[in-house]
Amino acid sequence: MPSESTIRLMTRLALKHNAINLSQGFPNESPPADMVLSAAGALLDGESAESAARMAERLRPMLEQRGGKDALNQYSIPAGLPALREQISRHYAHYMPTVPADPEQNVTVVLGATEGFAVLLRALCNPGDSVVFFEPFHELYPSQCMLWGMRPRAVTLRECEFGEWSYELPELLRALRGARLLLLNSPHNPTGKVFDAVELAEIARACIDHDVLCVTDEIYQFITYPDATGRLHKHVSIATVDEQMRERTCIVNALSKSASATGWRIGWVVSPAHLTPAVRACHDQLVVQAPTPLQFGATALLSLGPSFFDSIAAEYLTKRDLLVAALRAARFTVIAPPPGAYYLFVAYADVPALRGLAPREAAMAMIERHGVACVPGDNFYLGRSKLDPQNGGRYLRFAFVRSIDVLRTAAQRLHAMAAAEPCLVMEGGLS
Amino acid sequence: MPSESTIRLMTRLALKHNAINLSQGFPNESPPADMVLSAAGALLDGESAESAARMAERLRPMLEQRGGKDALNQYSIPAGLPALREQISRHYAHYMPTVPADPEQNVTVVLGATEGFAVLLRALCNPGDSVVFFEPFHELYPSQCMLWGMRPRAVTLRECEFGEWSYELPELLRALRGARLLLLNSPHNPTGKVFDAVELAEIARACIDHDVLCVTDEIYQFITYPDATGRLHKHVSIATVDEQMRERTCIVNALSKSASATGWRIGWVVSPAHLTPAVRACHDQLVVQAPTPLQFGATALLSLGPSFFDSIAAEYLTKRDLLVAALRAARFTVIAPPPGAYYLFVAYADVPALRGLAPREAAMAMIERHGVACVPGDNFYLGRSKLDPQNGGRYLRFAFVRSIDVLRTAAQRLHAMAAAEPCLVMEGGLS
Repeated sequence: MPSESTIRLMTRLALKHNAINLSQGFPNESPPADMVLSAAGALLDGESAESAARMAERLRPMLEQRGGKDALNQYSIPAGLPALREQISRHYAHYMPTVPADPEQNVTVVLGATEGFAVLLRALCNPGDSVVFFEPFHELYPSQCMLWGMRPRAVTLRECEFGEWSYELPELLRALRGARLLLLNSPHNPTGKVFDAVELAEIARACIDHDVLCVTDEIYQFITYPDATGRLHKHVSIATVDEQMRERTCIVNALSKSASATGWRIGWVVSPAHLTPAVRACHDQLVVQAPTPLQFGATALLSLGPSFFDSIAAEYLTKRDLLVAALRAARFTVIAPPPGAYYLFVAYADVPALRGLAPREAAMAMIERHGVACVPGDNFYLGRSKLDPQNGGRYLRFAFVRSIDVLRTAAQRLHAMAAAEPCLVMEGGLS
Repeated sequence: MPSESTIRLMTRLALKHNAINLSQGFPNESPPADMVLSAAGALLDGESAESAARMAERLRPMLEQRGGKDALNQYSIPAGLPALREQISRHYAHYMPTVPADPEQNVTVVLGATEGFAVLLRALCNPGDSVVFFEPFHELYPSQCMLWGMRPRAVTLRECEFGEWSYELPELLRALRGARLLLLNSPHNPTGKVFDAVELAEIARACIDHDVLCVTDEIYQFITYPDATGRLHKHVSIATVDEQMRERTCIVNALSKSASATGWRIGWVVSPAHLTPAVRACHDQLVVQAPTPLQFGATALLSLGPSFFDSIAAEYLTKRDLLVAALRAARFTVIAPPPGAYYLFVAYADVPALRGLAPREAAMAMIERHGVACVPGDNFYLGRSKLDPQNGGRYLRFAFVRSIDVLRTAAQRLHAMAAAEPCLVMEGGLS
């Protein structure tokens, strides 16, 4: 794998020796006022281009005291602002005290979880290597494998009698044989499954036995719900299973889902020290760095501490239950509400209006006739499972992440679907 | 190459059919106040973490009217905000009217030029393909080729009698034979060469004859200077040579260098329509999108229009001449000031303090003993050319991009080097 950029090495040495840095080609003067005002207007207002433009004008007087010197809109260390890495380190010390998360040795700031996965695939694997993940999966996993020339192998999660999703150990072991990497996602998109400690110990054992590395996608870490008895389905990272697993696991997270900032593209990788140089070199060469000014925002977010992160899930619980009720009314099959994340991955065979439709047709009918957009299940499966009536052919995915008023409108439309169906059947009977 | 994400297809259809969008997993509510305030403080203040934090506090009252709804901190179209692509389109209509730059067909917003190159390498080439570029080169070119498994081939530019840098056509033709892509950079880092119309026509002919695609790195487009007679060395894009060349050329640019915002990571690709789907799919899967709020800033920048862009170079001209004089005083060889970009790539054989040193040793001596950091020449060459005394072994690169006060301090240190040398020689002679 490639090593540190010479230009940045010279920049580091210039700082150390207090030399004037004419090595790296970046300015130290302010960007044009209109440009920073418009970006700040969008950040602070958030609502629409028009109101953001008004906000930008209100901000203009703030620039009067601007000195003309600039560092915070310029290149910063590709691995991430030291203050941000320090906050990420504290965050992990609180939530996963056994995981080494030293700002220098373990933490790299990346451009959202997506870039994090791209970097890790390249840093940890070679073209031709096999990468294992559970299906249904985020569509990104196989497509990024394809980008880098790696071979995706899917292990199927199946919905069981009580609504939980399970894998079969022999199938997992077969997939891991000769593979390089397991890409694990928990809480899981699209099923909402939260892998429990017993499963994680079993998966960890399998990774160690087959000498497979692990990348764990934990972007829904803080979105888990209580079970029927009121006990929280708490997120456990596979990196915390034991020391051997810590040494072979890279954690990916981002602020998109935890902080309602999907458009910021700020994430991080926590890697064992021996893997960090390859991760950073690959990140540096692929995209250089995450935007400097937004890293200041991320630093402020993480410094809000556990009181912020521990309160995220409560609001989603209300939304989940609202959408579960509406989907059930429309005769989607929700055996049990999901324990984590913010999706409902539901079978539609019993929905009269969608009967006999393939998943894409069903999704199109939902958009065009019923006014609610969802994602066809085949999108989350590979190969033969894609249209298998027990797998990809069985499900649609609905997200319950929008604000409660939006979800209420969606719920009304789902209830309307339910109300309309018997009439349609009767009319059919009369004609 | 991969196609559009199904989830985003459903999002587009939801908009079209006015359906409630529960397909994509992104919120429509505001990120935490502290987070947006810190980012906006960094953007607007720019100077230091401390003054940015004070700015963030001054901004807090601005959030009182925030409605709680948010779109501008969230996912937006991966290809880039329509308003930004519209501005980029107008920009090209003005500067390169013959290049198709339709917002829908040709323009893709990327995460800085670096991500742009990464995407284009993957979208246009296959692993094992050869990629040609001129050396000296930006260190990114060969390292990105290596990331993707492509083979870099360098064609050497040589400094001639009057200080201009030239290639030899037979060497270029040999390199292009069987290659897939030419990566051209003009104005050129590190030499400052601005390829002229005759050279570009010759290179274009060679690309067409060998059926080689072209990616042109034009990030220094607006940084060119007048020649000795006062006539501007104007940037010409190889995409404008003729229709055949337009159909095989992708232009990469970014606002880093033009707008003093290297830390923003906003750039764009202008591609012929038939290549755009592959470019967008690859960009989407690698990083999803450039940060939404910063794209508003970029839109404002581009709407400043030609009066802004045409005035960028003037300031650099003063800086160039200051540094040229200081380097000459220290006995670096500046045969002629560079016609473009903001680097001086200068031979150091005649600098007494650096005599006999390899380029890395010379760069270290400049940092440690003379207090001015530069980049060793070998960093810009491949293979045998790296330490060749006529190529990589001959040069150091100094950037003249920092503010004039910083450059004045550097100039003083270079003059001090010059003043110290004769004494050192005399002392040596006396001992």
